Amino acid sequence: MKLLKQRILQEGMALSDTILKVDSFLNHQVDPELMDKMGQAFADYFNNHGITKVFTIESSGIAPTVMTAIKMNLQMVILKKQASKILKDDILQTEVHSFTKGSDYQLTLSKDFITKDDKILIIDDFLANGEAALGAARLVEMAGATVAGIGIVIEKSFQPGRAALEAKGYDIYSLARIKKLGVNHIEFIESNESSQMN
Amino acid sequence: MKLLKQRILQEGMALSDTILKVDSFLNHQVDPELMDKMGQAFADYFNNHGITKVFTIESSGIAPTVMTAIKMNLQMVILKKQASKILKDDILQTEVHSFTKGSDYQLTLSKDFITKDDKILIIDDFLANGEAALGAARLVEMAGATVAGIGIVIEKSFQPGRAALEAKGYDIYSLARIKKLGVNHIEFIESNESSQMN
Repeated sequence: MKLLKQRILQEGMALSDTILKVDSFLNHQVDPELMDKMGQAFADYFNNHGITKVFTIESSGIAPTVMTAIKMNLQMVILKKQASKILKDDILQTEVHSFTKGSDYQLTLSKDFITKDDKILIIDDFLANGEAALGAARLVEMAGATVAGIGIVIEKSFQPGRAALEAKGYDIYSLARIKKLGVNHIEFIESNESSQMN
Repeated sequence: MKLLKQRILQEGMALSDTILKVDSFLNHQVDPELMDKMGQAFADYFNNHGITKVFTIESSGIAPTVMTAIKMNLQMVILKKQASKILKDDILQTEVHSFTKGSDYQLTLSKDFITKDDKILIIDDFLANGEAALGAARLVEMAGATVAGIGIVIEKSFQPGRAALEAKGYDIYSLARIKKLGVNHIEFIESNESSQMN
């Protein structure tokens, strides 16, 4: 998605070889017009996948996901990050490790909002190690439903997340795929659109 | 907002005299069409308030807020809940007590996304004791900017939040105002629209 790549180049800050800060349009300040265009891009790609519901993980994925869901005319579900296990029959949980925070959380879904016939599109803001997306996919499959696609805003393709998701056979669509990250340097997978930052 | 009140009556679950669960359309599963209509209602009300930016608090306020912001053609900012103080010059923080969780957090805003000329609309999903909204307002005022309005999806009018915000002189617009809550009973402030649940 060319517009997103432009914004990443203009405003993204590579804090290290692995950390990209996009606080001015995605993670802290949010550009609703860009979210709307992202939603359209996800809706266009996953249009013929038989999706019945759109899932995301709180909280940075919510804005692009609600835009996707409205364009696909589907309900969305926000998977919750709980600090500890909740012992209730109507809840599904799976442990997810956050490399960013160096801690674990219980990704949580109420059984009320999924059936085994559901075909779920999972959307998240970043794909790095894939822990969050894999956790979301585990919850979907614990409910007997199907992961019909995974939509990612920014994929850090030099980290193992995509390979881990591909190994499970999921259809992954990333709006921007970063090949290489470094201070003052962001390179995308499409070589004709790669560029350097100042 | 009549549609919201209908959904609260049909799907809301009063777990006690103070706790209303609306997990099927707002807090866990999210109805994007309803979010869109909420966004329009906030945009209509605050249209002539000179708003320059829309703020919300992660994470349940994000979906209605992004819909409001796109309709008002404004950027939005998600105030972050940090577990502890971050010692950085470019960050504003204020301590907020969560009655729901029985703990405190540091509501956090980067100085990059506010100027003293900003007129901020703060949107949140629930107004109960007002701690979160008051914290958001403190951050806006710490930056020298103005709180130009507060939009609330569901106000629990029998709790002290509204009075605390009114005492500060803020313009508050709530889409649904709950006068009384009890198991199997939800009563709204507008007497002609109050009703009982089954």
